[in-house]
Amino acid sequence: MQAVMGEFIGTMILILLGGGVCAACNLNQSKAQNAGWIVIALGWAMAVTIAVFISGFMGPAHLNPAVTIAMAMTGAIEWSQVVPFIIAQLLGAIVGAILVWLAYLPHWDATEDQGAILGTFATGPAIRNLPANMITEAIGTFVLVLALLAFGKNDLQFGNNVFAVGAVILAVGLSLGGPTGYAINPARDLGPRIAHAILPMKNKGDSDWGYALVPIVGPIIGAIIAVLVFNLF
Amino acid sequence: MQAVMGEFIGTMILILLGGGVCAACNLNQSKAQNAGWIVIALGWAMAVTIAVFISGFMGPAHLNPAVTIAMAMTGAIEWSQVVPFIIAQLLGAIVGAILVWLAYLPHWDATEDQGAILGTFATGPAIRNLPANMITEAIGTFVLVLALLAFGKNDLQFGNNVFAVGAVILAVGLSLGGPTGYAINPARDLGPRIAHAILPMKNKGDSDWGYALVPIVGPIIGAIIAVLVFNLF
Amino acid sequence: MQAVMGEFIGTMILILLGGGVCAACNLNQSKAQNAGWIVIALGWAMAVTIAVFISGFMGPAHLNPAVTIAMAMTGAIEWSQVVPFIIAQLLGAIVGAILVWLAYLPHWDATEDQGAILGTFATGPAIRNLPANMITEAIGTFVLVLALLAFGKNDLQFGNNVFAVGAVILAVGLSLGGPTGYAINPARDLGPRIAHAILPMKNKGDSDWGYALVPIVGPIIGAIIAVLVFNLF
Amino acid sequence: MQAVMGEFIGTMILILLGGGVCAACNLNQSKAQNAGWIVIALGWAMAVTIAVFISGFMGPAHLNPAVTIAMAMTGAIEWSQVVPFIIAQLLGAIVGAILVWLAYLPHWDATEDQGAILGTFATGPAIRNLPANMITEAIGTFVLVLALLAFGKNDLQFGNNVFAVGAVILAVGLSLGGPTGYAINPARDLGPRIAHAILPMKNKGDSDWGYALVPIVGPIIGAIIAVLVFNLF
Repeated sequence: MQAVMGEFIGTMILILLGGGVCAACNLNQSKAQNAGWIVIALGWAMAVTIAVFISGFMGPAHLNPAVTIAMAMTGAIEWSQVVPFIIAQLLGAIVGAILVWLAYLPHWDATEDQGAILGTFATGPAIRNLPANMITEAIGTFVLVLALLAFGKNDLQFGNNVFAVGAVILAVGLSLGGPTGYAINPARDLGPRIAHAILPMKNKGDSDWGYALVPIVGPIIGAIIAVLVFNLF
Repeated sequence: MQAVMGEFIGTMILILLGGGVCAACNLNQSKAQNAGWIVIALGWAMAVTIAVFISGFMGPAHLNPAVTIAMAMTGAIEWSQVVPFIIAQLLGAIVGAILVWLAYLPHWDATEDQGAILGTFATGPAIRNLPANMITEAIGTFVLVLALLAFGKNDLQFGNNVFAVGAVILAVGLSLGGPTGYAINPARDLGPRIAHAILPMKNKGDSDWGYALVPIVGPIIGAIIAVLVFNLF
Repeated sequence: MQAVMGEFIGTMILILLGGGVCAACNLNQSKAQNAGWIVIALGWAMAVTIAVFISGFMGPAHLNPAVTIAMAMTGAIEWSQVVPFIIAQLLGAIVGAILVWLAYLPHWDATEDQGAILGTFATGPAIRNLPANMITEAIGTFVLVLALLAFGKNDLQFGNNVFAVGAVILAVGLSLGGPTGYAINPARDLGPRIAHAILPMKNKGDSDWGYALVPIVGPIIGAIIAVLVFNLF
Repeated sequence: MQAVMGEFIGTMILILLGGGVCAACNLNQSKAQNAGWIVIALGWAMAVTIAVFISGFMGPAHLNPAVTIAMAMTGAIEWSQVVPFIIAQLLGAIVGAILVWLAYLPHWDATEDQGAILGTFATGPAIRNLPANMITEAIGTFVLVLALLAFGKNDLQFGNNVFAVGAVILAVGLSLGGPTGYAINPARDLGPRIAHAILPMKNKGDSDWGYALVPIVGPIIGAIIAVLVFNLF
């Protein structure tokens, strides 16, 4: 139960900080508007780092349904934990997105660009090509999960292992984020997309549900391939 | 007593480096003028990191009245220490701001923008909406204090824990700094604002005392909520 | 045998992430296009960090023929391991480059600049002067190998030593990457150049084989000098 | 004797990488030209980090005459070591600057701006005001030496302490580098300035010897004040 709470709190913090950096860069009059890819990539890396620090003493701190499925495949958690973990992650992501909305409250009405507003919540492709977009998300998540499995083999001290997780998020963001904005986490995309659909914002457009399956299916495929490749070695 | 001195020295270094990075980016003819949000956010993160390294062997190195109040609530320090700590933090912040003024001495007269000068000392909102600005400051401080409390639960080695504190400052700055410039620390804002009011600078404008309560009250509320949420789990 | 597999997997991840950050910055419509040198240098540093984390439990994780030759000179590995290691590194680099191509699939046709496309795979000189370019590559690799040899003298904890390797890649990239784009690794350049020659891309130009020897010979010379200098002390 | 060699090699690497990042950002046709303050500040931080890693097993790795004087004041080294250390640091800095010249060989003739060329070697003030410039250098070095003394009080693991040194260089650079380009090290400025005077470069101007005393005297004053303040606590 405490582990499930950890997934909720951790994913909430993850999205509060990760969605926050998108808001910081996207919204009009934000002091960090147009701060560039380094701020986006480092912001998400720090978001995961801090989220794992905050929730890491309560449980395994997956904060990501694709990671949870991969860890169930390896036997690190029970399969019966998968559904409660994923529900907690999704709820945490929705609450985190609502906190972003609250933290940037006066900036939504100051922003007219519907794409900038949606981009603060959900990911979207630079060039829309759903199979290719799914491959990109699968490759990014493959690297993430392969790294997490390898960290488990190393005898990393707590603290160092959290920084290592932050480093892999930074790496995937800098290198593989260009085509789709790297969800690499179904809860990270779906939770805030639901929040976008619900929250009142004067200039918001539609929530692009046509893309919503890509950052769910792609990451899960990538995670499964990572476990298979890792077991091969 | 040594702990109180530590709060003074640590907050002095924090503001010398943190105010310094604002001066570096804001003031005319500075080699780092307009260096962007990554420099601001990383500069403050390093400011806190170095300030904690320098003062960490003298005491708990809160360097922040909101953190001091939170730590008294958890019993980590005595309530009788709260007032001396806060006075030391405030005095340290004032002295730190004077050192920034000294380090950038020829640049004040070279700068005409009153907002740029005030922004080197105190925080200000991108969109002035005092209740919303207070919520933003409360959310940022909530993340900071929640992380500090969680670090206490982890068995982090000294050194790693200081870097972790730097990471949370980086995270809050990158992600939640857009609307108000993230004081998340009453001494960080009030001390330099007092210095701004006192110091001779040809082009300085008024010190915007109408905003001064927001970065005091918001962070204290956020810190208290963080302790309550943490105790819940 | 496991060590050879580690060289393959590690170099594959290295090029997937390192080539990925070049694609992110170079290709049209990428969300990170023109993100600047900090993203390139940090991206490659994280690429090496994550590649070493992933392959470090399988073997020494050289991921670089110049390092492999240097380590054979010092006796850290057998000379008989050199050829299998280098073959594995080269194959890993080719596969990594193919994965970059896959991750950025719709962006190749959207990019018309042949230099931008080639630059995603292979390095090239800012000012073409082959002897000078070779000296630059030799100096960069000299720093890399000298640092790796010094790390071996320190009693660095696992994790810290991987971050230290990332730091040296960051240092060489930021400081010595300006003239040639810092291959400092024969496999990093040759493998992706072969992939560039093979892969179908509408707007690709020639693979600039006239430059291909520089990032092979320069790094090997630099690595050998580093071993000689290190043994002197 | 080995410690003296360590000072030579370490300062050589420090200037090769530190001067290198200035060349990368300043010289025409460099791939990193105009990469901004983040690259400069992070480049110097990594330069010191790697220089200390490389020379740290040979001796105390001061790499800075102001630090050497401070450490003699505290008794950490013998006063008789001060002169040999400083000579080694200065010679290392000159050789390091020559290596920068070699690494960027074709770029000197491609650069016409005499200030950009000199700025690759020596520091210079944004606003020339020698007493104020000296205060800035003294304050920056005060923070550096105070942090180094505090690190000695902490029981930092090797590796973590090197990263902490890199963090303080990053902090001083980001925050206090705006007015003078932060020499904070007499050898870092004088050595490359001598190299600038000696080396053949078509478009080089004069070596600005009128400023040369500032980055010598300022850092030494700052270091002495840091020791006095530290002993007070």
